[in-house]
Order: sequence, then C-alpha cells, then structure tokens
Amino acid sequence: MSRPKNIIVIGGSAAGPAAAAKAKRISPGSDVKMFEAGDYISVGTCEMPYVLSGDIENYKNILLFDTVTFKKEKGVEVFTRHLVEGIDRKTKEIKVLDLFNGTTHFYKYDKLILTTGAKPKTLKQFTLPAENLFHFKNVSDLIKVKDYVKKKINNVAVIGSGYIGLETANAFSVHGLNVIVVERENHPIPSAETEIQLLVGELLANNKVRFFGGVKNLKPVYSDEKIESLNIDGRLVEVDLVIISVGFDPNNDLAKKANLEIGEFGGIKVDSRLKTSDPHIYAAGDCMEVVDAVTGRPNYFPLATLARDHGHSAGENAAGGNSRIEPIVKNISVKLWNKFSINVGLSSAEAKRNRFKFKTVTATANNLVKVMPGSEKVFGKIIYEEDSKEILGAAFFGGKEVSGYGDIISTLIKLKQSGEILSEINYNYTPPLSPFINLLSLLGRKIKS
Amino acid sequence: MSRPKNIIVIGGSAAGPAAAAKAKRISPGSDVKMFEAGDYISVGTCEMPYVLSGDIENYKNILLFDTVTFKKEKGVEVFTRHLVEGIDRKTKEIKVLDLFNGTTHFYKYDKLILTTGAKPKTLKQFTLPAENLFHFKNVSDLIKVKDYVKKKINNVAVIGSGYIGLETANAFSVHGLNVIVVERENHPIPSAETEIQLLVGELLANNKVRFFGGVKNLKPVYSDEKIESLNIDGRLVEVDLVIISVGFDPNNDLAKKANLEIGEFGGIKVDSRLKTSDPHIYAAGDCMEVVDAVTGRPNYFPLATLARDHGHSAGENAAGGNSRIEPIVKNISVKLWNKFSINVGLSSAEAKRNRFKFKTVTATANNLVKVMPGSEKVFGKIIYEEDSKEILGAAFFGGKEVSGYGDIISTLIKLKQSGEILSEINYNYTPPLSPFINLLSLLGRKIKS
Repeated sequence: MSRPKNIIVIGGSAAGPAAAAKAKRISPGSDVKMFEAGDYISVGTCEMPYVLSGDIENYKNILLFDTVTFKKEKGVEVFTRHLVEGIDRKTKEIKVLDLFNGTTHFYKYDKLILTTGAKPKTLKQFTLPAENLFHFKNVSDLIKVKDYVKKKINNVAVIGSGYIGLETANAFSVHGLNVIVVERENHPIPSAETEIQLLVGELLANNKVRFFGGVKNLKPVYSDEKIESLNIDGRLVEVDLVIISVGFDPNNDLAKKANLEIGEFGGIKVDSRLKTSDPHIYAAGDCMEVVDAVTGRPNYFPLATLARDHGHSAGENAAGGNSRIEPIVKNISVKLWNKFSINVGLSSAEAKRNRFKFKTVTATANNLVKVMPGSEKVFGKIIYEEDSKEILGAAFFGGKEVSGYGDIISTLIKLKQSGEILSEINYNYTPPLSPFINLLSLLGRKIKS
Repeated sequence: MSRPKNIIVIGGSAAGPAAAAKAKRISPGSDVKMFEAGDYISVGTCEMPYVLSGDIENYKNILLFDTVTFKKEKGVEVFTRHLVEGIDRKTKEIKVLDLFNGTTHFYKYDKLILTTGAKPKTLKQFTLPAENLFHFKNVSDLIKVKDYVKKKINNVAVIGSGYIGLETANAFSVHGLNVIVVERENHPIPSAETEIQLLVGELLANNKVRFFGGVKNLKPVYSDEKIESLNIDGRLVEVDLVIISVGFDPNNDLAKKANLEIGEFGGIKVDSRLKTSDPHIYAAGDCMEVVDAVTGRPNYFPLATLARDHGHSAGENAAGGNSRIEPIVKNISVKLWNKFSINVGLSSAEAKRNRFKFKTVTATANNLVKVMPGSEKVFGKIIYEEDSKEILGAAFFGGKEVSGYGDIISTLIKLKQSGEILSEINYNYTPPLSPFINLLSLLGRKIKS
C-alpha cells in the first residue's frame, strides 16, 4: 500500500488529535502536521461544565496533551495559534497565518484531514461585545468565564436551554449564584420529549433556577462595556454575567471556501470512508455530517465520542488504510443536578418530521424496589414504528440507570429490533442495584399489548 | 375456553402469589386457594440481607402482602402454616396438615400449581441443632438471626461463599462484627470467573473479613446447645453465630412423592407452558428447571424475577390460558460492600463443561473519565464461541454501571449476536455518568481483532 508523504490535520480539539495520532501510527514514515487556531489541543470539551462547577479542580486536567508531549508521544508536529486561511486543492497546499507573529506560511499536503469542529450560533442582538458576555465553547471561554466569576457577581443569565445551556446553568447554581435561563421555546430542552421538558422544568424550579420560556423579544441593556440587564419581553432583569448557549453549527468556513460539498445541515459531506468530495481531503468530528442509523439520511451529531471514532477512521484512511464508518444511533446523556436524562435515536418530533407512522408508550417505575434506601422514580418513553413495532427512539429521565437503558435501546435500534423484545429480556435484579420490575420491561409490555 | 373450578397453589413465597393472583385474574369464577407451610407469604427474599444490614428497617417491609390483604385484593384464599403432605393425582386432591392444630384436611383441585421453592443445602457435620446455628433462607430465619444478633456477640462465621453467603457476611460486617467466611473451594464465589474471585478476595480483605479457602475439614465444636468454635482444618476459631449458606436445591419432595418427572438438577420438569408430566399440574419458581438460552439444555436458576414471571405464566395456564415461556439467559447481580458484580450467560467453566469451543477476552477501564470525581475501575470478561464469535457469557465487577453492561450482554445473547458488535454500539457519554471509552467497546475490539 502506498503511504502519503505529507498528512495535514486542520483542527486540534478532539477529532484532530485522534486523526493525527492514528495517521502517524498507521504510516510512521509520513510527516504528520496538525494546525490549531486556538491555544490548546486535545481538549475534553464535555468536561468543561465540571471545571466550572469545581468538580474538576483545574482546566489543565481536561487538556489531555500539550503540544510538546503530543509531538513526543505521537510523533505529530503541532502548531497552535496557527489559523489556516485557505486550501488550494490544485496545488494541494494550505495557507496558514501564524497568530504569534502575523506571518503567513504555505504547507504542502498529500492528504488533508479537516477537523475544524463546530462554531457556536450567535444571536444578532448580542453581537456588540461586552466584558461580561461569553460563549462557552472552548477552553479559552472557560478560563475567561472562571476568571469573571471570581469577581463579585450574583446574577447569571444563560441564553438557551439545550443540554449545554442547562449544564452551564447547573454549574453556576452550585456556586450559589442566582441563575436564570432564557429560552425562545416554551419549555427547557426544546429537542426533548414534552414529558421530559416538564420534568426538567420542575428540576429547575426545585433548584431555584428561574426559567423564562417562550421569550419573543430579548434585548441586552448595555452600560459602558457591560450588559447590566436583559430586557425579556419588556421585563428588565439585572445580570452580572451572560452566557450565550443557543447551539452549534458545523464550522465549514474553510471547506466552503475550498468548494467542498456541504450537506443540508451545513456539515461537510463525507462518504463511509470519511472522504469529502475531494479524494485527497477527509473530514471528521463536529464539522461534518453523519448518516443517521434510524432514517438512513444525513444528520448532524456534534458528539465527542463520534469525533474520536471518526478521527481515528479519517486518520487511518488518510494514511492509506480502509476504515469504514457505520451509520450512527444518536445516544446523548446529560446530568442536571441530581438527575440524568438521555435520548436515543429519534424524538417523536423527529419521527414525525421524517414521516414515520409511529406510536409511543411511556411508563414511570422505581429504579430500586420501594423499600430500598435511594429508590427513586425513573421515567421512560419509547417511540416505535406502528406496523413493525421497530424502535425508532427513546428518552429516559431518572437516576444513573438511564445510561444502561439508553445503551440497550441504542443496541436494539442498531439491530432493528421490535420494541416487544424489551418485555422478554432477562434483566438482572439485586435490591441495591437494579429494580425487581425493570422500566424497560414495562415499556415492552405496553408495546406488546 | 373452559375454566377450572378449583385451582390450588402450593407455596406462598414468590412464584405462588404471582401464580394465584394471575389465575384468579384470568378466571374470576374459579376458586383459588394457596397453601403455605410457613408463617409468611409474598416475601421479598432477595431483600433479606438488607433487613439484616439495617438498610431496610423492618422485616415487615419485605412482606408485600398479609393473608387478609391478599384475599381482599387478589381474591385468593390463603392458608399459612398449612403443610401439604401429599398429592393424590388420581382423585386430584391434596392432603394438608394444619400446623396450628394438627388436623388433616383434603382439598380437591382441577388444576394444581407447585411453587414449593428451594430448600437450603445442609452439611452433615452441622445436623445437630444449636441455638446459634442458622440458615438464611426465609423470613423466620431472618427474624431468628436478627434476634440473636441483639445478644452480645462478636464473631460470626458464614459457611459458604456464594452470592448469598457473601451478602450475609457483608450485612454482618457493617454491624462491626468480626466475620469469617469458610469455603471448601480455594476462592470466594466458586461459580465466578477467576479474575472476579481474586477481586472479591481483595474486597473481603479490605473489609476485614477473614476468608478461609480450600477448607477440607470443617467441624463444629459444641458446648451445651451452642457451637462455641469451629475446627477449620485443625485450627480452632471462636464463633458466636454460624450461618450455613452452601446453596439451594429445588424443593421437589412433594413432586417426587407424587411421581412427577424430575430433571437432572433435581428440579421439577416442565414444558414451555410450565406443565409438569401431569397435565393437571403446573410448576413455577425455584422448584423447577428452566431451559438455558445459551445451551438449549435444562438448568437451575433460582431467581426471584423468574419466579414472578413463571408464576404469572403458570397461573395463566392453570386458569385456561396459553402463556409460553422463553429460554432464560442467566443474569445475576450482587452488591458486596461498595462494589457490584454481575454474571450473565455461561461462565468459562460452564462453557467448558458444555463443550463449547470458546475464547475469552478481558479488560479493565475507568467507569468515568479519570479526572471526574468518583471515577473507579471496572473489570469485564466476555466468553464467546471461537468460530461464530457469538457471546456465550460475561462477567463484570465494578460500580453501578455493571447493571447496564449485564443487561446489554443478556440482550445480545438472546439475539445470538457476535461479540464484535460491542465495538460498534453507539454508547452514551457524559462525564458524570458514563465513560468516554466504554468497557464494552474495548472488549468488542479485542474480540474483533
């Protein structure tokens, strides 16, 4: 097999380091370079809320590698604060701006891997910068926010109530700050099932987080360089710190400029070998679209585990290998205060949008027998195709057991199983660990009947 | 469908109440009677160690029904302290000794359900009764043991280191008692994988439970009505309380006397409708054998969840229904101190005994990313068929995540899946709940390679 001489990776957060290290391992003779516009590489982005909350003491703990160690251990040359400005697909070279000194350089590639990640969505009314206005996307944001929290602040506003918005709200609230969450939709976690939205609403209230839902008109009120309050549908609420967390888009700037094919979600289009529309360019991670295992259609799942797996595959293939990626079953979990929520596959809204003829069942059960200390309620919902009864998706809200429930559903969706099987699985049972009547078996019986 | 007039259930612990209640629900016109030799019905036997430990305050909390409520809510007439002495299959009647007053009665049945449960194995050197010698099989045992613990005792010996023996040792040790465990085999949990035996050995040592393994010669030393010490291979160890926990046999006494077919494990033989060799007699629960889903052969799994499910089916069928039971994937979990262990399907010893050509893989992983508080190691082992790579069994030892792992393996065994799929499942990930690299995916990759 012929190996490329020069492999270049653009983006050093999650998919990039996985791709670069794998490429070098597969093809030790290749020269592998990785360019990152920011200060840090190999970042545990999902862990950021836990640095903010203090569960993880120092942001350095979520940096898996520095550039020196990465070079030493993985054999990859790393350039941080190097912004790739363009790709010349004809000459196969990239144009790089060194942000340290403002000089421009050109590097030749035989194979290029784009791992440019995602970029936070913005709100047009918050485009004017303010010293107390932040995104929460990367470690530099985290450091700035943590520094700012050290000042005497009381009131925090999180704009957006998706998973990351609520994780962030949770992290602030454990510091004893007053936290409000502002959301355009009526309920928190707009992508979640209604039942779970209501449970999350209760959770916010129980933890003294004020939720402003259905907000039509949100305006910041500036005073000097700061936002001093938010005008929420005409109501003024004082704020000391504002976080914008309204979701992510694939960071497709470079790919677009290079005229690579872009999908309907804005992600770079790749084939099952992670090859883009240019046979010399691969992509992996939050900048690209995947195939949804349920619909068989493209979708956008910016998840760290996929970035890692697809980074490995892209690295392998760029180095001359032949790694094939599978369609993805979305399987997302989140901790909010003392509860855990998970959603797998399609939501009922997505099932509708994809024109499935579907039904749903719901059930609430105890996660341990009632007489055991620590027994608490867990809620579950299954979305399944009406005729075949094949599982399309599921959502759970409760204790730690939801992780296993989610992974079982993910497995069954992958295997295209009917939801009836949930009533026939032999679940384990011991009083301090697992329930005598498993929630999944209740749901399965409802699907069966 | 014709409904039987008289349905009689013998045994009131777990399968019995399930069977009786279901029979009455299916056939409200039938007269359903349940006979129990002991004092209590509808017992949460698995919860007994947690009454002993104090996690559950009162033994009454694990009695789901008293006879009056059961009659009222389920419409079943219950006779406690009524010992069934014989079944006359020709006249279709049972002979019952009323233990309250010593009188004998006969009751006619159209359909009979045997839910006579299991009986604890005994050791011949402990047949002489002693006031400080106990089994730990039923609520009467539990009450006696709890009463005895109130006396000033220090030293407890548990004979036998299976799951229940160790749960019991665990429960005593949290009371600050000196606990020893005596075992004929070299390692604790003789049925477990060697790796897990070693981990459990460490756990016992860390919790100051002395383990005597490979004991060839065990003798009680009596003084008056008490065992004052144990002679363990020539070494005298002082004891204040002795628990015998060396396993269970199916309680097949009545069935044997009635010449019903008995299987190779001593359990009553039933078909997939839970019918015994007599078409008017059904059986369910710990007194009968099931079909093992992995081997397709009979096996003996005395588990509360099966007693409940099979009780329901037997009740339904005795009442004229047609409920079919599926082969069983063994899936057993246990909590020992702060750890959880689970085994699913066949152990490697069982795979060998059943002449499978098999391989095993093992791995240890963190259950959360290392930087998260509470991250701990979890061990896993998969046993799989060499050619097809179909999963035969698995064992795990770690935190609460093992419950989900066990249920995923149980599902995959049921679906006759290759272990390779474990590397392809989309597992959920969020730092405080689930690992970035799932142990199951590591095991799957090892099976694949």
